[in-house]
Amino acid sequence: MPSISKKGQLMPQSPIRKLAPFAEQAAKEGKTIYYLNIGQPDIKTPQVALDAVKIHSLEILAYTRSEGSEDYRRKIADYYLKNDIKVNHDDIIVTTGGSEALLFAFGSVMDVDDEIIIPEPFYANYNGFSTASGVKVVPVISKIEDNFALPPIEEFEKLITPKTKAILICNPGNPTGYLYSKEEIKKLAAIVKKHDLFLIADEVYREFVYDGDTHYSVMQELGLEDHAIMIDSVSKRYSMCGARIGCLVSKNKSVIQTALKFAQARLSPPTLAQIASEAALATPQRYFDNVIKEYVDRRNTLITELQKIDGVKVAKPKGAFYCIAELPVKNSDDFAQWLLEHFDVDGETIMVAPAGGFYSTPGVGLNQVRIAYVLKKESLIKAVNILKEALKVYKD
Amino acid sequence: MPSISKKGQLMPQSPIRKLAPFAEQAAKEGKTIYYLNIGQPDIKTPQVALDAVKIHSLEILAYTRSEGSEDYRRKIADYYLKNDIKVNHDDIIVTTGGSEALLFAFGSVMDVDDEIIIPEPFYANYNGFSTASGVKVVPVISKIEDNFALPPIEEFEKLITPKTKAILICNPGNPTGYLYSKEEIKKLAAIVKKHDLFLIADEVYREFVYDGDTHYSVMQELGLEDHAIMIDSVSKRYSMCGARIGCLVSKNKSVIQTALKFAQARLSPPTLAQIASEAALATPQRYFDNVIKEYVDRRNTLITELQKIDGVKVAKPKGAFYCIAELPVKNSDDFAQWLLEHFDVDGETIMVAPAGGFYSTPGVGLNQVRIAYVLKKESLIKAVNILKEALKVYKD
Repeated sequence: MPSISKKGQLMPQSPIRKLAPFAEQAAKEGKTIYYLNIGQPDIKTPQVALDAVKIHSLEILAYTRSEGSEDYRRKIADYYLKNDIKVNHDDIIVTTGGSEALLFAFGSVMDVDDEIIIPEPFYANYNGFSTASGVKVVPVISKIEDNFALPPIEEFEKLITPKTKAILICNPGNPTGYLYSKEEIKKLAAIVKKHDLFLIADEVYREFVYDGDTHYSVMQELGLEDHAIMIDSVSKRYSMCGARIGCLVSKNKSVIQTALKFAQARLSPPTLAQIASEAALATPQRYFDNVIKEYVDRRNTLITELQKIDGVKVAKPKGAFYCIAELPVKNSDDFAQWLLEHFDVDGETIMVAPAGGFYSTPGVGLNQVRIAYVLKKESLIKAVNILKEALKVYKD
Repeated sequence: MPSISKKGQLMPQSPIRKLAPFAEQAAKEGKTIYYLNIGQPDIKTPQVALDAVKIHSLEILAYTRSEGSEDYRRKIADYYLKNDIKVNHDDIIVTTGGSEALLFAFGSVMDVDDEIIIPEPFYANYNGFSTASGVKVVPVISKIEDNFALPPIEEFEKLITPKTKAILICNPGNPTGYLYSKEEIKKLAAIVKKHDLFLIADEVYREFVYDGDTHYSVMQELGLEDHAIMIDSVSKRYSMCGARIGCLVSKNKSVIQTALKFAQARLSPPTLAQIASEAALATPQRYFDNVIKEYVDRRNTLITELQKIDGVKVAKPKGAFYCIAELPVKNSDDFAQWLLEHFDVDGETIMVAPAGGFYSTPGVGLNQVRIAYVLKKESLIKAVNILKEALKVYKD
């Protein structure tokens, strides 16, 4: 039998997906599961986006331009302008989700064996994209005790080698909910300029910022034009994860020209989803106001309830809709599986994402889980109660 | 300024897209252009597929499973069964176009510096996917004089090294329109089994087979289960290139498990397009009968008209909707650009794809162009007349 690639063998399994068979089995057995494990919000997609694909008059579902239709890119640029981000439509390449934007960014700036520094814990699929690209992730550890703030700049500088090509941040952060301050972005800007690196910022949770804080984009930092690459997506903003529309944004023309070659090889981003995404830009502000209010309420509920449990430590998220919780367990992989296989409260259990997969340093985060607060408040209260009862009886 | 990757620098520009600025300029100047350069058919998408996205009742445009919804995969398996291809739904991973299926296949079976043998001329983006994956394309030349038939097996064997991991064919072929015979597939099967290689077959033009010939899939060849990987797409079959839905199919469980990890990293194929593609499977047979009749008519017209031009040599396509034509010019890149910039017949000109980009051997195919017969018969007649007049006055 011919053998599969080394790369394929090294590809990590998604930490969220690997529990799926146990969840399916639990559901088959009649258990109700509260899914806290995945960033699929229960918020409705704006009607204007759903309607757009219902009223289109296409007779041929044709390719669009590889970089996305010009109309759509001009409207995206307008959206950014409203967010104090000044870019032109030709600084934008529309991609198949933020995932593809990350792949294009990795391919455009890194070769095999190059290194990328990422504050961990980080979005687990950064590991997958790095493996797929043959790139080495060099983690810099941010701590739950510090609420996952940016580690000191010296920690980054210690890790920079001639192979280092980029620093990647997620802001606000998945899985930490951390929001980088303007000062932190300026520190990162200084370091990438000093060492001639790219700063790739995954800003797909831009709108999900709480407590009166404001988001500061890498695209707003003057003098960073040649270094900054922004990753974006409609998935979370408009609760349309299934559209698979994102974009890569940069003022660096070489980056755009290079990413465009990757984009041309795959021909076109999905056309129907572009129609929906373009329409979604007309979503009224009250939609976001309501969504943010809802998430703040959920976050406050979740954090308050979690803090009531003995031995649980939790960082307070300032954005996005995740939090990392440290649990009094040795191995959260085992615990998460046990919750699905062997535990329930009145026929109900929970599914959480073990946090080990959000770290690339082996052995770190094994007592942590990521909880996505994408469920209604009443469900979150029930879910945390299930966690509390489970911790009472669970034996490592 | 930080530098882009070597890989990014090496990424080829699509031979079809690089003429686009000249076409845009010509259009701005008021010229009518017959687009013979791209495989975007003018055939209408089946109404049943377009309707499906109009009548859906989704409130949240959510992710599907990374491998595609089970319902859809079961229906795809049924479609294959009707085509005498026996596969299960779990032999199938739904992808974002055939493009992503190729990327997953390359990633799953090849590492950097591995080699893949491809009969050339071949679909130009195989070069892009190979560069993106760091894989070396080893071409085996098929000739217009032989109607682009499979080169002798000895030609393949001469090229096999310890680095060779796969042979890739496109059947029926883009850009040649060549349909491999059952005997040719059996020869390839023997060689991949002997040398323990994968046989990747891009079969996206399966339905487009003419003159009473039948398509023989690599998935039909007994004993090839561990070696065969089929690439498929709805793009051409249902004239829905913009859906971006394809699939990777293999009986080799390691391949599927590995490709699934790549699929999980990018979360989900596009949801709306899956709805349209699932519905498209109910397209009535008369749609295909009409489409095939139309393409045969177009092909016959195109070939007949081309053969009337002095100095033009053309292979007769047995499938797909492309043909390669050899022209009495030295450099078809220059000629194609000149057609857009400096030539017209009564304000009309043509856009063709220079064939150099369909070869990886430098200097080969420079006097050839690929013509897609995706236009109505009357337009094709006008277009070939423009070519004839152009060749009368063009000076290399």
